[in-house]
Amino acid sequence: MSFNYTVLDKDKQTEARRGKLETEHGSFQTPIFMPVGTQAAVKSISPPELKEIGAEIILGNTYHLSLRPGEELIEKAGGLHEFMNWDRPILTDSGGFQVFSLAELNKITDQGVHFQSHIDGARYFIDPERSIEIQNRLGADIIMAFDECPPGDADKKYVNKAVERTLKWAERCQKKHNPNSGQTLFGIIQGGVYKDLRQMCASELRDMNFAGYAVGGLSVGEKKEDMMRVLDFTVPELPEDKPRYLMGVGTPGDLLEGVQRGIDMFDCVLPTRLGRHGSCFTSRGRIKVRNAEYKEDFTPVDPECDCRVCENYTRAYIRHLLKRKEILGVRLTSYHNLYFYLQLMKKVRSAVSRGQLSQLCRDFYQKYGR
Amino acid sequence: MSFNYTVLDKDKQTEARRGKLETEHGSFQTPIFMPVGTQAAVKSISPPELKEIGAEIILGNTYHLSLRPGEELIEKAGGLHEFMNWDRPILTDSGGFQVFSLAELNKITDQGVHFQSHIDGARYFIDPERSIEIQNRLGADIIMAFDECPPGDADKKYVNKAVERTLKWAERCQKKHNPNSGQTLFGIIQGGVYKDLRQMCASELRDMNFAGYAVGGLSVGEKKEDMMRVLDFTVPELPEDKPRYLMGVGTPGDLLEGVQRGIDMFDCVLPTRLGRHGSCFTSRGRIKVRNAEYKEDFTPVDPECDCRVCENYTRAYIRHLLKRKEILGVRLTSYHNLYFYLQLMKKVRSAVSRGQLSQLCRDFYQKYGR
Repeated sequence: MSFNYTVLDKDKQTEARRGKLETEHGSFQTPIFMPVGTQAAVKSISPPELKEIGAEIILGNTYHLSLRPGEELIEKAGGLHEFMNWDRPILTDSGGFQVFSLAELNKITDQGVHFQSHIDGARYFIDPERSIEIQNRLGADIIMAFDECPPGDADKKYVNKAVERTLKWAERCQKKHNPNSGQTLFGIIQGGVYKDLRQMCASELRDMNFAGYAVGGLSVGEKKEDMMRVLDFTVPELPEDKPRYLMGVGTPGDLLEGVQRGIDMFDCVLPTRLGRHGSCFTSRGRIKVRNAEYKEDFTPVDPECDCRVCENYTRAYIRHLLKRKEILGVRLTSYHNLYFYLQLMKKVRSAVSRGQLSQLCRDFYQKYGR
Repeated sequence: MSFNYTVLDKDKQTEARRGKLETEHGSFQTPIFMPVGTQAAVKSISPPELKEIGAEIILGNTYHLSLRPGEELIEKAGGLHEFMNWDRPILTDSGGFQVFSLAELNKITDQGVHFQSHIDGARYFIDPERSIEIQNRLGADIIMAFDECPPGDADKKYVNKAVERTLKWAERCQKKHNPNSGQTLFGIIQGGVYKDLRQMCASELRDMNFAGYAVGGLSVGEKKEDMMRVLDFTVPELPEDKPRYLMGVGTPGDLLEGVQRGIDMFDCVLPTRLGRHGSCFTSRGRIKVRNAEYKEDFTPVDPECDCRVCENYTRAYIRHLLKRKEILGVRLTSYHNLYFYLQLMKKVRSAVSRGQLSQLCRDFYQKYGR
């Protein structure tokens, strides 16, 4: 098996660690942020640009890809890497999160989920076996178990039921998954904000010996303190020698908090989504570059950033492009925002290896704000 | 004055010539195609990509830029080159064409044009002096005289009046223009499809000794034969030692026909506009890559093209991106289409210098179709 994870350094003051993750399409160091390429493209950004920005692994969404263009087509193209011309690692989610958040749910049973496509209302059925089959055909390096994601406001009884299903489904995923496929399967811990459920779920999944573990069902409407509390009591239940992935999270601050709690991998649409809406991350906090105050601002988006956008374009120009709905505007904000995230994680890895993570976090918050 | 034009080679079988045009921001060879950067950006394409594609000079639209973001802002930014971070030559049109085609016209007098913005209906007045002033502030290398563009179906009396105004306005532009500004002013020949009017306009403008001459008022709805006929009798009236620019034209075939009639410069939104609509130019004609027939076509857009898009992406992938409204799809089609145009002109220049233009045109039409 080509998958391997090694801890390289451990922080002394926090749970943070620096690690190395090896896959069939190359290796990278953690903690890492994975840009989201929902529909076989990171929105507005090309694969060569992703490399320029420093992306080492990207994410694809199984739900979207299986609806359009369909896993058959992507398999015919030679898999997702070939289809989109990205030769570095890819992770696909299980489709679960989108089925539960985007689609119209018709019926959830222990067998699987009947749902209607958010695009055209067409009826589909997905279960653990089907999710793994789709992900096998997409051909990502890391694939995810199919889990049940309860809504953020679900009561304990509901969440308990979801955890039970998630555990049974994890077993079925593992059974369906071919360990010689060159793909690696991660398990997903559910349990809402409930300590006993999270710990029980983590403990059971740990016994199933997955190659990596994700914490799912966070950033779904719960309070930030709750998210951090969940990490505080969940991550210690996970094996030290396996990578840990916090799904769908989050802001730069969330990343720093997650890292300090022992998380190795993150993904989030925030940098590209906010970019499309005209917001940019800077070392001194987020700015809405679309705003009138930047009309005659001929400084870079972030004067402390050394990305191509900040080296070559001004806030005034980007604002003009965004206001005029020029595609280049969205390209520039998305590029910068992704660079900001990837640079932050690069600094995090360096700080962990030098034992200076806490200092980095303090410095970051002092300028960026909480 | 930094502007200079030299004829390098003349074709023996046609009126085509290869030339060298020098400006403050560098020199390039003609015949050339100028990508259109209407609102200070070539739609979806970045300046470094334009260089990669081989763009030597781009066009900006005075009408659009003066409305949004306004010439004051661009002047404050240090001019259009600085504002958009493009350090090669730029040509701006006079605003005339858009005033007559996009805006709501309120009143045309010998003095100038009262119109309402197509964006918000705000009232403006533009005349030759104002057009030159805006273009001075935008700071392009080549600027255009403010002309009256009659509609394509205008009768001879109307066109005659427009020519008279165009000539008077050309004088006023020349008077307003500061020849020491580092900018070069071109005159524009109007006259519709009427030989005597075109020749009279050309002859009068020739006497005014502009640094270059544009043929305007074509590709505005007249028949293709009429456009070629107009070139046949207009271009010979223009001085041999000045560059000739056919405004807003056209298809790859139009470019070849124009070159053979002695045209040196072209601009057109076609490659980017068709790209946005999912159409691509190929050596065997145009294809609508959005179409279902390309769903499982894993070949490049144009198998004979060596652009980055054709080297790295398939029709099936680009179709998927376009169908899913992914910005990357439009980027890829626009990039390829511009490359197709610029490569065609590169081949044209090479063919002229080797005395093989007619052969190139025959070969092109044989594969591409008429």
